[in-house]
Amino acid sequence: VRPADTAQVAAVVRACSAARVALVPQGGNTGLVGGSVPLAGEVVLSLRRLDALGEVDLRAGQVTVGAGATLAGVQSHVRPHGLAVGVDLAPRDSCTIGGMVATNAGGINVVRHGTMRRQVAGVEAVLGDGSVVSHLAGLTKDNTGYDLAGLLTGSEGTLGIVTAVRLTLAPLPTYRVTVVLGFSDLASAIDATAHLRLTVPDLEAAEVMFADGVEMVAEHAGAAIPDALRASVSLLVEVAGRSDPLEQVAGALASLPASAPLAGEPAVAATPEQRDRLWLFRERHSEAINALGPPVKLDVSLPANEMAAFVDALPAVLPASARLSLFGHLGDGNLHVNVSGVLSTALSPDELASAEVVEEAVLRAVVDHGGSISAEHGIGTAKARYLHLCRSPEEIAAFRAIKRALDPGAILNPGVLLPPD
Amino acid sequence: VRPADTAQVAAVVRACSAARVALVPQGGNTGLVGGSVPLAGEVVLSLRRLDALGEVDLRAGQVTVGAGATLAGVQSHVRPHGLAVGVDLAPRDSCTIGGMVATNAGGINVVRHGTMRRQVAGVEAVLGDGSVVSHLAGLTKDNTGYDLAGLLTGSEGTLGIVTAVRLTLAPLPTYRVTVVLGFSDLASAIDATAHLRLTVPDLEAAEVMFADGVEMVAEHAGAAIPDALRASVSLLVEVAGRSDPLEQVAGALASLPASAPLAGEPAVAATPEQRDRLWLFRERHSEAINALGPPVKLDVSLPANEMAAFVDALPAVLPASARLSLFGHLGDGNLHVNVSGVLSTALSPDELASAEVVEEAVLRAVVDHGGSISAEHGIGTAKARYLHLCRSPEEIAAFRAIKRALDPGAILNPGVLLPPD
Repeated sequence: VRPADTAQVAAVVRACSAARVALVPQGGNTGLVGGSVPLAGEVVLSLRRLDALGEVDLRAGQVTVGAGATLAGVQSHVRPHGLAVGVDLAPRDSCTIGGMVATNAGGINVVRHGTMRRQVAGVEAVLGDGSVVSHLAGLTKDNTGYDLAGLLTGSEGTLGIVTAVRLTLAPLPTYRVTVVLGFSDLASAIDATAHLRLTVPDLEAAEVMFADGVEMVAEHAGAAIPDALRASVSLLVEVAGRSDPLEQVAGALASLPASAPLAGEPAVAATPEQRDRLWLFRERHSEAINALGPPVKLDVSLPANEMAAFVDALPAVLPASARLSLFGHLGDGNLHVNVSGVLSTALSPDELASAEVVEEAVLRAVVDHGGSISAEHGIGTAKARYLHLCRSPEEIAAFRAIKRALDPGAILNPGVLLPPD
Repeated sequence: VRPADTAQVAAVVRACSAARVALVPQGGNTGLVGGSVPLAGEVVLSLRRLDALGEVDLRAGQVTVGAGATLAGVQSHVRPHGLAVGVDLAPRDSCTIGGMVATNAGGINVVRHGTMRRQVAGVEAVLGDGSVVSHLAGLTKDNTGYDLAGLLTGSEGTLGIVTAVRLTLAPLPTYRVTVVLGFSDLASAIDATAHLRLTVPDLEAAEVMFADGVEMVAEHAGAAIPDALRASVSLLVEVAGRSDPLEQVAGALASLPASAPLAGEPAVAATPEQRDRLWLFRERHSEAINALGPPVKLDVSLPANEMAAFVDALPAVLPASARLSLFGHLGDGNLHVNVSGVLSTALSPDELASAEVVEEAVLRAVVDHGGSISAEHGIGTAKARYLHLCRSPEEIAAFRAIKRALDPGAILNPGVLLPPD
């Protein structure tokens, strides 16, 4: 069903509730964990027609948009006013704001602006019984009851269907500088990132790459490796804002802590062309990895104090024939773990069983180091069976109670996020 | 009861749950809406003994503290590491972190750091059935289930008792500059604030005062009024950070929009003494108002687009004999509304009835202009009867369902936040 507005969404939910038929809400279908895939004949409810873009509220620095508006559509809508959505993602042309809220999307700029939950100043949503809750005034201070907007954000369509969102916008930067720093080990890069977060207010990204990944991309993309990217561990830093970027960066580099010694000269890029030459190595990692054959892909986060130990421990839990590729958002403690050589394009039952063993071994290592088994991709159906690894029985019981409270008929996105009872 | 740790809190809740006796949790008792006051023989549970201060995690920029730790205690604990709690409040010596989380405390620096909810990276809490939920790793990216920490923040002790908090810390500023700008009307000050929020990344406060309030404080405190504070509307701006403050401020002032014309020369203060001379007028407002006799005090927020119209409409809903004093956090749209001349120290039944009429009239005007009847003080018991003014029956039903889900025996803080069924 493709309803056109909130009232029609509510009518669909009420009809499904009365008929005891389950629903799967869909936005731009860019999710990575199966959270919007119908599995057992559920009604698929697309939010794409709810794509209204409200007037930009310049005094509040906010805008109200329909759940079906694409991220790119909203970015274009607010840019002329010197504003931006603080969370930006590669699939911006197809991913929708409603989907980004439902999955609490993150991405590269979380170190600066937080995840989607921080951009959400209010939502309108249809709960599992068909009732509509709407709280879109976007007040910065509003202590009148439970934070339904924050609760619905990241609930993966299991508590309610978000139909409209009031977004807090960020100032559009007027300058942008990219810096690459080389280190001889991950621990140094982690300490440098902590230092940058304290000293560079305009820090917008802190991405980590490893020498083998950089070489893989260079080969795959036919690009020469800049000197600054030849260290064991490279940190790609983006600084973006409205005043004095090079001074900020120079000040921070001059005061790097002793625990974060640089390996070689840093690269600083201030023109779009120079920046592209550096970002290419980070951005084409996934593509280069996929060229090795289908990887086992996991998206995890680790406490800063444990990440280096986790990376050291990882090879021991993998089969000897596996090839490990790591990269990610160091500023948020978010690593993308890719294991090649386990799956081929044949995807035989044996291979799939081995992949599951690898997946569980990596996720157990994550939990052993105090991390999260899903940094930003969510739980969906793909990871529901692993939820117990990082959430206690008491927490899962609280999740179930909240789910029953807001979706008493259990018709919203069954099988997603919570494992079967 | 004064338990010493989370296990003892859980034992108390289980005992109360079994005996069907209700509980009122207390922190530093600095709340303003009666949320921690027992009304009907409830057990009072003090969290003050849970005051442990964990080691500061420098890599993550976070710390875990017990709910009973005072704000001042945590600020002193993290300051030597160049870090600060982003929410700071005048009662810092007595208010506790647990209470600040339970009430989603705000204050003067919300325009920079957000309310308490944004500082909370994780909580440990005891739910209404005595079960303990604990998720304190503080991962920036962690999409594994519902946001229990955000839900418990601001729930005023009605869903669970927070026993420990993982706080995200902010960099401690190394400079601090105070600026006073004069305007001839509120609308200009609102547009100037929107401009400052876009152009000054280190904007840390934007407080509004009116000429009659400034004169009242000058008289009460025996202080001379600086020239910059003689305009109809004064904006007291604080800029704090690590680089180049005066340049940021000068750039923003040079580019003020036409809709925000200045009335007179701005004052810029960069030494503590200069700053104190300006802040005095903002900080001593409450004291000067109380000297007029007990005021009807309301804490409301308005959309930036409606605030000037709300202020214009306010005198018409008040008795002719009432004296209105306004001031507040313009950067967050948060106004403190004080009405003197309705109550005397006698607090007779007639006066109390008149005060209630004034209170409801102001809150209805707030709602008519799209505002919130409680900006940061919460609902407590004092405002529960007004919740329906700004929350729909569907929203209140959702609140009740969540409350039943997490406190099935209805033993946590009865009568707080939700009006009687």
